[in-house]
Amino acid sequence: MAHTLAQKILQRHTDQKIEGTGQIVQCDVSLVLANDITAPLAIKSFKAMGAKSVFDKDKVALVMDHFTPQKDIASAIQVKNTREFAQEQNITHYYEGGDCGVEHALLPELGLVGPGDIVIGADSHTCTYGGLGAFATGLGSTDVAGGMALGSTWFKVPPTIRAIFNGELPEFVGAKDLILRLIGEIGVSGALYKALEFGGSTVDALDVEGRMTIANMAIEAGGKCGLFPVDAKTLEYTAARGRNDEALTPDEGAEYEQVITFDVSNMSPMVACPHLPDNVHPVENVDPKKVDQVVIGSCTNGRISDLREAAAVLKGRKVASHTRAIVLPATPNIWKQALREGLIETFMDSGCIVGPATCGPCLGGHMGILADGEVAVATTNRNFKGRMGSLESEVYLSSPAVAAASALAGEIADPRKL
Amino acid sequence: MAHTLAQKILQRHTDQKIEGTGQIVQCDVSLVLANDITAPLAIKSFKAMGAKSVFDKDKVALVMDHFTPQKDIASAIQVKNTREFAQEQNITHYYEGGDCGVEHALLPELGLVGPGDIVIGADSHTCTYGGLGAFATGLGSTDVAGGMALGSTWFKVPPTIRAIFNGELPEFVGAKDLILRLIGEIGVSGALYKALEFGGSTVDALDVEGRMTIANMAIEAGGKCGLFPVDAKTLEYTAARGRNDEALTPDEGAEYEQVITFDVSNMSPMVACPHLPDNVHPVENVDPKKVDQVVIGSCTNGRISDLREAAAVLKGRKVASHTRAIVLPATPNIWKQALREGLIETFMDSGCIVGPATCGPCLGGHMGILADGEVAVATTNRNFKGRMGSLESEVYLSSPAVAAASALAGEIADPRKL
Repeated sequence: MAHTLAQKILQRHTDQKIEGTGQIVQCDVSLVLANDITAPLAIKSFKAMGAKSVFDKDKVALVMDHFTPQKDIASAIQVKNTREFAQEQNITHYYEGGDCGVEHALLPELGLVGPGDIVIGADSHTCTYGGLGAFATGLGSTDVAGGMALGSTWFKVPPTIRAIFNGELPEFVGAKDLILRLIGEIGVSGALYKALEFGGSTVDALDVEGRMTIANMAIEAGGKCGLFPVDAKTLEYTAARGRNDEALTPDEGAEYEQVITFDVSNMSPMVACPHLPDNVHPVENVDPKKVDQVVIGSCTNGRISDLREAAAVLKGRKVASHTRAIVLPATPNIWKQALREGLIETFMDSGCIVGPATCGPCLGGHMGILADGEVAVATTNRNFKGRMGSLESEVYLSSPAVAAASALAGEIADPRKL
Repeated sequence: MAHTLAQKILQRHTDQKIEGTGQIVQCDVSLVLANDITAPLAIKSFKAMGAKSVFDKDKVALVMDHFTPQKDIASAIQVKNTREFAQEQNITHYYEGGDCGVEHALLPELGLVGPGDIVIGADSHTCTYGGLGAFATGLGSTDVAGGMALGSTWFKVPPTIRAIFNGELPEFVGAKDLILRLIGEIGVSGALYKALEFGGSTVDALDVEGRMTIANMAIEAGGKCGLFPVDAKTLEYTAARGRNDEALTPDEGAEYEQVITFDVSNMSPMVACPHLPDNVHPVENVDPKKVDQVVIGSCTNGRISDLREAAAVLKGRKVASHTRAIVLPATPNIWKQALREGLIETFMDSGCIVGPATCGPCLGGHMGILADGEVAVATTNRNFKGRMGSLESEVYLSSPAVAAASALAGEIADPRKL
């Protein structure tokens, strides 16, 4: 039968014949991931289930990125326990400190994830790697522990929603706006246990980083994964990282549960207002609310193209005096690239705070937590009540361009009107 | 009568005639300081004592530096409350976010403290400004609240210990080593409620930043303040920051409780071993213990000269893979200067984590907290048990050069042997 991207990848990793959706299949996995919050739980389960050693020391990645540099004693102990497990198991891909970055930016950069892979991670934004054509999905720490021990896990073959974006993106409209628009359309449960598959001329024209931004937020519509076809751009990206991959497209005639088509040519920058990622409005329809904090970074928008987009808006201008603008490049390599390109200087000159590669405030971890009544515009992925701090605070999600414009204005602002 | 530096400055700020030591004098103050930990307490006391407005809106500095960017909801609320007080009182020198830095590096940089001033701050390292010839001392938040309301406070005129350093400093030996040596000599209570006054050819040759490093740690010997004479170097520094100061030296024949003289010409770099700043040993006598974390920054050693010293050691070399090396420039201006000089690039290329201007891990706040059993070498000022995290962790205090050498070696190391 004709397969969607999701079915095609799952089929490569199982001997069972995939005949449709809803079927349970046992698949080998290409990589198993956990971070400083989830690895300690996974390790505990791993030991509780009597596992002695990981299935492949080169196929487990432990990335200490959420509370780095260690924010308190509890998080320092979490890291220490994970470090000791990594040493004991001789795990190749353990990252902490100066070579560590936000996991979903770091692993693609290192060539550890790519086309056709199945990646399971004890982190909901594992779906990011779908931007490279990997079936990548977040699991609970216990399932990840099983994956670490066995090198395989089960999936229920998901139905697929195809999202097609056609047309040329207007200035200041990009990947983040596309995924926000889709989530606004289908809602935070719109793709629950379904694969999202992206296509159309806009998607073809997007760079690989933009695709990862979109795939990253598949989970915000409830998606099991968010998949992009593998084209020449993907292959160029992964080849530059030492991989030897092949193109991958859905089969002609594959069955989709739903196909949604967007024309992007007249789109506005989009903003997800509190307190759900599907409360999406064009920026011009959002009240110009006073902004206490702007965050530019995270696994959604902390890559070099995001920093370039923000810096282009900030260059030669000043952040509003009542606004904290926090820039967190997602990996040390992105950080160094931004330094070489003068972006770090632009951020500092405009009055931003530049921090290390960390998930930081995205999940209310550290490095920019909100007090009661404070408002943030963030390039992150979730604006749930209390996500970035106080239950009485508010988070607006946007692109780097809108976030940068809002930092300058000190209120939610439209970069097209600067 | 002939006055020490401490007596001389106090005399300038009171109508009472200073006749010796032990006398209680009421002095007007030049600046009152509090930070994000202490300001909320001071504000609470200020209101509880029925005060309506600060004595001078230009002479109160509120610097939100300890947990910045806000590390959790509690610290975000502390900052918010202080911000609202600053707005309500129309306080000129309120610092938060992109223009904020570590208070004791920031205020000298802004020209807010200088020769002959009396500065009281709700922070023990307020004594730093003694490097510029200010009688500067840490008080409790309640006394600082009184100072904020009245513009004056009382002092018991302290006896003075004079520390004289003579000779030329060997390579890799600097200001931090001098103050560690002194504290090692007189102990953590050696100058309890006494002024320390510095002199000698080594001190004359020191730059202003080095003098602030030394004055900063006066409190680690229990000192009420640590005072340097005001010479051409001081005046050049403060003039560049918009001040118009005059030279200031102790009177000929002033009475000292004790005079201690050091010859520095054969000195080694010094290390304060756990768990007190007076447990000081030459680096070559310290066991080469494995180091988990190195911290370069803080109000003691986060200035541009400190970053230059560390970068000179790190340049072209790599931090040990098991060591986190965290560099925290003390103010945004220092950060930008380090960027322009290529120091930030050196730190990143050598595998350091570069963070924003914050007190961070120095006081176990955030941005590098230690787990049980972990060991840090830090350019900070205190190595009390649990100061940087777990009660089972250890902190070794050193100069930037020793810290950088230890980051490279992954164990406590001597920069002379690189």
